Amino acid sequence: MPEFARGFVRDMRPRWAFEEVGQPYAVNLIADSKCPEHRRWQPFGQVPTYRDDEVAIFESGAIVLRIAERAGKLVPVDPAARMRALQWLAAALNSVEPFVMAVAVNDIFEADREWSKARHVKVVDDLKTRLGDLEAALGDKAWLDGDAFTVGDLMMISVLGGLRRTGLLRDFPRLASYVARGESRPAYRKAMEDHMATFDAPASA
Amino acid sequence: MPEFARGFVRDMRPRWAFEEVGQPYAVNLIADSKCPEHRRWQPFGQVPTYRDDEVAIFESGAIVLRIAERAGKLVPVDPAARMRALQWLAAALNSVEPFVMAVAVNDIFEADREWSKARHVKVVDDLKTRLGDLEAALGDKAWLDGDAFTVGDLMMISVLGGLRRTGLLRDFPRLASYVARGESRPAYRKAMEDHMATFDAPASA
Repeated sequence: MPEFARGFVRDMRPRWAFEEVGQPYAVNLIADSKCPEHRRWQPFGQVPTYRDDEVAIFESGAIVLRIAERAGKLVPVDPAARMRALQWLAAALNSVEPFVMAVAVNDIFEADREWSKARHVKVVDDLKTRLGDLEAALGDKAWLDGDAFTVGDLMMISVLGGLRRTGLLRDFPRLASYVARGESRPAYRKAMEDHMATFDAPASA
Repeated sequence: MPEFARGFVRDMRPRWAFEEVGQPYAVNLIADSKCPEHRRWQPFGQVPTYRDDEVAIFESGAIVLRIAERAGKLVPVDPAARMRALQWLAAALNSVEPFVMAVAVNDIFEADREWSKARHVKVVDDLKTRLGDLEAALGDKAWLDGDAFTVGDLMMISVLGGLRRTGLLRDFPRLASYVARGESRPAYRKAMEDHMATFDAPASA
């Protein structure tokens, strides 16, 4: 794993969910996510994947939902509140993360391309529009749907955490507080500690 | 709506889901998705939004899931198969659509920017890597998880349908067949017919 990936790899999402619901879990680190053996579980050669006694899946959005539903936590029972939690989960994955990733792709992975500097302004503007809309929707609430922290918040804060080295949340104080509120949860802290420790651990094939 | 949006607006996704499960629905077209009244339902000023007697949500991924779950169709009952369907739904939204959108953004919305031509090769290469992985995962199966068409296929085919004017699926014959198979379903055809008809209909505020 490259140095810049520390704190950003998506195993953080299931780790955080496991800690929130109090479910112990075992980690299997892999040396090469692009190898054929891993691709049987993850066709795009990425992490994380997930397995329990009943289910084997990939995609952090689905994994977090599985962990939450299996524990009967982080997803409200009331049908309207449940669907709003899933709405915010989908919004994090489909309406916010692509804009966060566009900045990361441009500024990190395409940094040496001839267009990167000129395009930076455009991708940051697009992201800021999205962040402004999200901040307005959050308003003065503690979490996206009010007082209850759900899988929607876990995913949205995970996605917004991808901006922590960019300074871009400085213009959005309520979003910045929201992210800080999420990242100060004991479950997040424990998950991040364990996530960071893996960078010093040896990987198996 | 601009001409190029015909056939691509995301109201197609709930329309298709409604037709698959046989649930009648009413459509409320809006003249200005950026107006404050609409943003109360959709913070990003986009479509679609959804409401039934119990639930009011946005995000096409969550809406399609609600329609499917409410009808007891398109989502398998078996927990393992159910989570694989939700995994493919999440994969469509988070692992495939951002790459499809990157091409659309570059080639349509950033067509007049100085980087658009040079960057075209990069975004197409990135997308093709993703499509190759997806085609390998599909293999010779009819649908992503085998014989049963699920919300995962509905969303993946909706996302891949965004490429229909680019010719990019020509290099992926099994994916192209998969999309054609989905789009030949009577429910898809009815939904697309109704979708296209709205472009000739007057909008209300």
